[in-house]
Amino acid sequence: MPKLRVHNITVSLDGYAAGPNQRLEHPLGEGFEEMHDWMFAAMRDHADGRTGVDVDHVARSEENIGATIMGRNMFGPHRGPWQDESWKGWWGANPPYHNDVFVHTHHLRPSVPMEGGTTFHFTDEPVETVLARAFEAADGKDVRIGGGAATVQQYLRAGLIDELHLAVFPKLLGSGERLLDNLGDGVDGYRVSELVSSPAVTHAVLVRR
Amino acid sequence: MPKLRVHNITVSLDGYAAGPNQRLEHPLGEGFEEMHDWMFAAMRDHADGRTGVDVDHVARSEENIGATIMGRNMFGPHRGPWQDESWKGWWGANPPYHNDVFVHTHHLRPSVPMEGGTTFHFTDEPVETVLARAFEAADGKDVRIGGGAATVQQYLRAGLIDELHLAVFPKLLGSGERLLDNLGDGVDGYRVSELVSSPAVTHAVLVRR
Repeated sequence: MPKLRVHNITVSLDGYAAGPNQRLEHPLGEGFEEMHDWMFAAMRDHADGRTGVDVDHVARSEENIGATIMGRNMFGPHRGPWQDESWKGWWGANPPYHNDVFVHTHHLRPSVPMEGGTTFHFTDEPVETVLARAFEAADGKDVRIGGGAATVQQYLRAGLIDELHLAVFPKLLGSGERLLDNLGDGVDGYRVSELVSSPAVTHAVLVRR
Repeated sequence: MPKLRVHNITVSLDGYAAGPNQRLEHPLGEGFEEMHDWMFAAMRDHADGRTGVDVDHVARSEENIGATIMGRNMFGPHRGPWQDESWKGWWGANPPYHNDVFVHTHHLRPSVPMEGGTTFHFTDEPVETVLARAFEAADGKDVRIGGGAATVQQYLRAGLIDELHLAVFPKLLGSGERLLDNLGDGVDGYRVSELVSSPAVTHAVLVRR
């Protein structure tokens, strides 16, 4: 059975996955710029053929993914209706997805095909419907949720996520968007299958019971 | 300079330090009974002369403490005015503190001397005043805050804690009292000096910048 997976979601020690005041210059919100340094370093090490706890997690995140789901806040800094449709994501002409990307938004627009096989689709359908479309697009491979925190929460509450990898970053942020919050009974379906520290972060993996 | 220290505060992966519905049968609230298993195991190992990450943290927590501060919820399950004064804490006739213990409460009562050098004092004074009294009682040694979450938060917000050791327990609780919450600008004064996992928990140590 194909799975719904989440990887490399970095949270501060006090649980925040994104900071306040997200905007063009601060895609992850203020104070969060360095939170993903471990991931970029691990990606470089992976490309260079090195191994290690961080590299292993980054490598795993790229395996067998056939479609992607994300929230609008991950797609861009805009809120409310689109001013125009020139914004095509943070990632340039050839985004790193190379598959169908379903963007949750109340503000629909036509699909945007990009170079390298990525196509952004915009949807206001319920999570179950979007996930069914993503599994169909993935054609037997797994589906990955890119983020952000609110989107991951929605799918966790609905019990739809099969595997969630978090990296806990050793800093206090004090405010922002909490990832593991408002989960209600959603948490009952999960157990922590791994908890291991590298010098940079602590990796935690949640799986279904 | 003597320090204000906090040790062995166990939080779930989603940040809760105590569960809902604390009462006599569930001193830490529902679902939290097993959270401290790592600590009791480490205490036994320490007594048996074994070493390890968990044992090292538990051993450190006992060094050079001259007085203790705690919230009323840690002292007992009662809320509101005392029904009588027969309750003398969870710990029996000879509590494991062996020093002066200052209990924050709005409901004052006379000090309670116990066997083994522990005396419980009840105070509704501000944190700065209570801390000054505790340092005086500690007579050059450090002061330790026992808990719970609300009391640790108050001292963190006020920037009074010098060292805070957390153990992150690999389970989701979904509700309860969050430790690292409502800290406001209090977080700015702290950095994470250690983040290391044992097979049981991840230890994080916060110190002043």
